[in-house]
Amino acid sequence: MNDAEIKSREKAIFEAGIKLGALYHQFTGSPVSPESVDSLEYAIEESIKNQPYVESISVKIDSDLIEENLNRFGYTELTGLMLEVDLTVKVGNTAVHAGIEVVDGYPLMALSRIE
Amino acid sequence: MNDAEIKSREKAIFEAGIKLGALYHQFTGSPVSPESVDSLEYAIEESIKNQPYVESISVKIDSDLIEENLNRFGYTELTGLMLEVDLTVKVGNTAVHAGIEVVDGYPLMALSRIE
Amino acid sequence: MNDAEIKSREKAIFEAGIKLGALYHQFTGSPVSPESVDSLEYAIEESIKNQPYVESISVKIDSDLIEENLNRFGYTELTGLMLEVDLTVKVGNTAVHAGIEVVDGYPLMALSRIE
Amino acid sequence: MNDAEIKSREKAIFEAGIKLGALYHQFTGSPVSPESVDSLEYAIEESIKNQPYVESISVKIDSDLIEENLNRFGYTELTGLMLEVDLTVKVGNTAVHAGIEVVDGYPLMALSRIE
Repeated sequence: MNDAEIKSREKAIFEAGIKLGALYHQFTGSPVSPESVDSLEYAIEESIKNQPYVESISVKIDSDLIEENLNRFGYTELTGLMLEVDLTVKVGNTAVHAGIEVVDGYPLMALSRIE
Repeated sequence: MNDAEIKSREKAIFEAGIKLGALYHQFTGSPVSPESVDSLEYAIEESIKNQPYVESISVKIDSDLIEENLNRFGYTELTGLMLEVDLTVKVGNTAVHAGIEVVDGYPLMALSRIE
Repeated sequence: MNDAEIKSREKAIFEAGIKLGALYHQFTGSPVSPESVDSLEYAIEESIKNQPYVESISVKIDSDLIEENLNRFGYTELTGLMLEVDLTVKVGNTAVHAGIEVVDGYPLMALSRIE
Repeated sequence: MNDAEIKSREKAIFEAGIKLGALYHQFTGSPVSPESVDSLEYAIEESIKNQPYVESISVKIDSDLIEENLNRFGYTELTGLMLEVDLTVKVGNTAVHAGIEVVDGYPLMALSRIE
């Protein structure tokens, strides 16, 4: 890799981290139920797509976990454990794939592929 | 009014305040653009509708203010000044109408009608 | 009560609700540990005291719940279940006491006293 | 660099991004005034320090911008434009320095040094 490639690779990795941290702390806590889950997934995708360098994003919220955590009013709050996120960020020629998924009971943010 | 009516009236007013404070501090800061504004309005409505005692809610985000505040990446963040919210909360027989609107350059939360 | 008293009473109740909803959705999700709990309690108090009509506020975060929920990195996120809040809001001559506490496993916001 | 060094370097960059995105979207929107700014700066530092791989963090909130944006109640909300953050994240032997600062009127998150 030449310097410019190193630079865009590192910037892409950094930007991927920013997006995942932002998404998580902006939207966890949102009231959510089986009825409203689709609109929340979609709005999170559309919101984060606005941010620089985002190529694509898929947000899935675990409906089973919502069901298990419903309070007596029929809803719960979005938590990191419910989130499955696949994100692609592109800077220059480098595409970074990263996401959020639950590993060992912890919502882990991780790089999955760089190309 | 008898005691039960007073109680449900006050509870309805209290619950209306909770919903507006929650909505504001959950969703301001979200990245938003002319392309994503509809999905965010809808998701906020569907999210807050989950909360107890909410009868109906309408959320409008000021598109002109979004346009005026676009950064060089083509988006901005949702602020209180962009929010126009109409909320109806019902406890017992009392319906409270409240909302958020900009008054004198400040996003004011106010009761509009109790019935 | 005359009309002005009714009005300030209702406004005080409404304002109390706003503050509790705001506090909850602004600060839940914050990383917190036994080492950082004091600074977070204090910052939440100082932040919410800025809002109009707040006379006083006490925020306690349940240290036992933090301990029980520590992840492998030694911290957790602030949840509603960890919050014990006592708030006094004053409008005109009416003081409203309200708070957040866990009732039946749910973080309940409630009015406790109006004077 | 060998593979392990590349890996820890990239992970450190990714983790730095996560922390800045998280900090920004967790704490912007918080009510803040000249009186409460110190407690908020300190609580943000202590909160983010809990997160994995954080070596050190300094958070400064621009007091002049707070003053300029005070509403008629004597406070404002924390925005990205008020934030000056210096963060060091360490993974393996790699330390990444990154931060938030205002560039051309936009709160920019950037890598400053990798060692």
